[in-house]
Amino acid sequence: MRDTATMVNGFDMDSVDALDPELRQIVKRRASLLGPAYKLFYANPVRIVRGEGVHLYDADGRAYLDAYNNVPSVGHCHPRVVEAIARQAATLNTHTRYASEPILDYAERLLGTYPAGIGRVMFTCTGSEAVDLALRIARFYTGGEGIVITANAYHGVTMAAAEISPSLGPAVPLGRSVWSVAPPAGQAFADQVRAAIADMNRHGVRLAAFIADSLFSSDGIRPDPAGFLRPVLDAVHDAGGLYIADEVQPGFGRTGEAMWGFQRHRIVPDLAVMGKPMGNGMPIAGVAARPEILEEFGHKIRYFNTFGGNSVCIAAAAAVLDVIEAEGLRQNALDVGGYLRDTLEAIAKDTPRISAVRGCGLYAAADFADPGTGAPDGDAAIRVVNGLRDRRVLISATGPDGSSLKIRPPLPFARPHVDHLAEALTDTLRTL
Amino acid sequence: MRDTATMVNGFDMDSVDALDPELRQIVKRRASLLGPAYKLFYANPVRIVRGEGVHLYDADGRAYLDAYNNVPSVGHCHPRVVEAIARQAATLNTHTRYASEPILDYAERLLGTYPAGIGRVMFTCTGSEAVDLALRIARFYTGGEGIVITANAYHGVTMAAAEISPSLGPAVPLGRSVWSVAPPAGQAFADQVRAAIADMNRHGVRLAAFIADSLFSSDGIRPDPAGFLRPVLDAVHDAGGLYIADEVQPGFGRTGEAMWGFQRHRIVPDLAVMGKPMGNGMPIAGVAARPEILEEFGHKIRYFNTFGGNSVCIAAAAAVLDVIEAEGLRQNALDVGGYLRDTLEAIAKDTPRISAVRGCGLYAAADFADPGTGAPDGDAAIRVVNGLRDRRVLISATGPDGSSLKIRPPLPFARPHVDHLAEALTDTLRTL
Repeated sequence: MRDTATMVNGFDMDSVDALDPELRQIVKRRASLLGPAYKLFYANPVRIVRGEGVHLYDADGRAYLDAYNNVPSVGHCHPRVVEAIARQAATLNTHTRYASEPILDYAERLLGTYPAGIGRVMFTCTGSEAVDLALRIARFYTGGEGIVITANAYHGVTMAAAEISPSLGPAVPLGRSVWSVAPPAGQAFADQVRAAIADMNRHGVRLAAFIADSLFSSDGIRPDPAGFLRPVLDAVHDAGGLYIADEVQPGFGRTGEAMWGFQRHRIVPDLAVMGKPMGNGMPIAGVAARPEILEEFGHKIRYFNTFGGNSVCIAAAAAVLDVIEAEGLRQNALDVGGYLRDTLEAIAKDTPRISAVRGCGLYAAADFADPGTGAPDGDAAIRVVNGLRDRRVLISATGPDGSSLKIRPPLPFARPHVDHLAEALTDTLRTL
Repeated sequence: MRDTATMVNGFDMDSVDALDPELRQIVKRRASLLGPAYKLFYANPVRIVRGEGVHLYDADGRAYLDAYNNVPSVGHCHPRVVEAIARQAATLNTHTRYASEPILDYAERLLGTYPAGIGRVMFTCTGSEAVDLALRIARFYTGGEGIVITANAYHGVTMAAAEISPSLGPAVPLGRSVWSVAPPAGQAFADQVRAAIADMNRHGVRLAAFIADSLFSSDGIRPDPAGFLRPVLDAVHDAGGLYIADEVQPGFGRTGEAMWGFQRHRIVPDLAVMGKPMGNGMPIAGVAARPEILEEFGHKIRYFNTFGGNSVCIAAAAAVLDVIEAEGLRQNALDVGGYLRDTLEAIAKDTPRISAVRGCGLYAAADFADPGTGAPDGDAAIRVVNGLRDRRVLISATGPDGSSLKIRPPLPFARPHVDHLAEALTDTLRTL
């Protein structure tokens, strides 16, 4: 069966017999128990058994520098988070229908990191659930159905989130109320959003929301120029819609410049969706909102998420905020992120294969292009990703052609880790 | 604003000023931070700070007998589960795109509890996500859109799950491809399902799936006669649809008679959805399936759930299976569940208010009805629920009128706990 669900940097099952016997057996067992939806990373998948800080370790005790995982954002198995999980799991783990104060303390602290105007939060377990809930809220609040997204957006895997996620590929149809615009390239982006809304209205569909990852991660990482989202917010409000900031990737300090990605653009969204790094791997996510938007929804629509905001996930999330503050991780993302981009740019100068370096904080992209034609070169990017894996440095690739290296390490990543990554990258480029 | 999102046994914010000052302050703070969607249980909400076995403890150290919570199914803070969580959180917590064996060991063991034919499992974080995924799979596999549900069904809170959940109330519209049938009452149920499918087809909609909680929990708990789902399975297959067993409530041994609720009916569903008790409170859920149903979906549709099947949740879930086996909890559910129903029936004999007792394993219902007219009496049921709460015994109510007591304790519930519950119930009934 032709596999149209391929992904950037996915292992190809056709080459399973080339793997070493032990790994081959694991991969086959996996296919037999979990089925074909479960893709592995890399031409030669990695067998991870332990994590600590910015390193992962395989079954033979070899260390891998993790420059990819943004979920264990304060570092793999951070002792403060581990301790909070262990202590809470031994004390109480329950849902939100008994009066409990830790969830309130956390909500207050979390909302304190948001600009004035964002005053309430609802908890879910995954970013997909948070996106799904934000869509429900936006449609209920506006009475509209239409959603505007970017051309290679990814927002999740529930039915409603998948239909606004073109990056899932051609077998997942976009919803009939979904309009998409080209990835942002400066101020013209707002005009494209206005045009999409006009076309949507021409089809008799009213706007419910515009939603975008504030760093446009799956569109190849488009952070600059900061501020280009400001006129988009106006366009959305002019059409009676809500602005949903998808902060699953940029949130919790990754951009270095601010706690939330939208803050770089000097906007205040109507709804903000959080996820991945929120509990350093524990399933917690949420929707922050202007209070008036949740008011009628909360009175009319019963929403209860059994595990959403459970005691253990809240304890983990509170510890994550502690660590971000105590270790100055946002400031570190700014500092080391700048050093990372400088380092990548120095490497790019020495090779005609890298056509651009972009990024913000500890989220960087390096575009690979054919030196002759300038066309995006996804094949080169993926060879680099696999070359780095062979040198035990973990990254991936992104963008519509998979031609941009995706470098997105845990936030305690330090300058020596950048140097290590740079050495391995230079070495890999020599063998291309 | 009129609150149409009321729920059975929900606290009414209009009476917030009658609460004791400390609780009042917590409840107001909650409303201000989390908004009106966050409902509390009871006329006098419970402030829980600790859990152990079948007991919860409030801030003053008072014990509550927990006869309600089916999520901490092997007991609150079970040491074996707590230890598994703590150890794994300190070792590694990552996603499923690295080759890892514990998830395979667990998948194999979990699938070993299913009848032959069910051979694969996909992991999500919540039952809602699992239902949402099962619907996506069923629609993809069959090419149909239509879903048949029961009249007071509850299947979750994602957009797709909510539109097949009439128990969420009138403000959440059912989907246009959703047909509902009356709650089951014996063998006639299959005829109703056939009639619903015929009507669906008459509207040009093809069947994708029939989905039902195998215990019909939100329809008031309808376990008997075991076997009535067998002709339903045939009706669904005759129409080219899939049978989805929602095992979020009956699964993992709660029925006492079997590990899975559908087994009592001697059927093998096409898809089974698991959730709540799977990780004793850790967010893990999943879809078990006949392998051929996942085959094309897995090759064509990219599905990756970041936290789904993460290392820590898998460790918790494996410990839950350990405890169910080591402590004979399914057998205990059968034994103590029978004793619970006998006890409730003895109480019912002495009061004209209880019109019926139903149940299966450690899931029991007692219907309240007006002694004169025989009409369902939700008001009496809720007064009993609150009366028990004042006696520090936790249960709730269910069914379309909220007139059935819902008794659904953690599985280590023992005979003395039933006696304690019975005493408190008898005492409460005297004051009605």
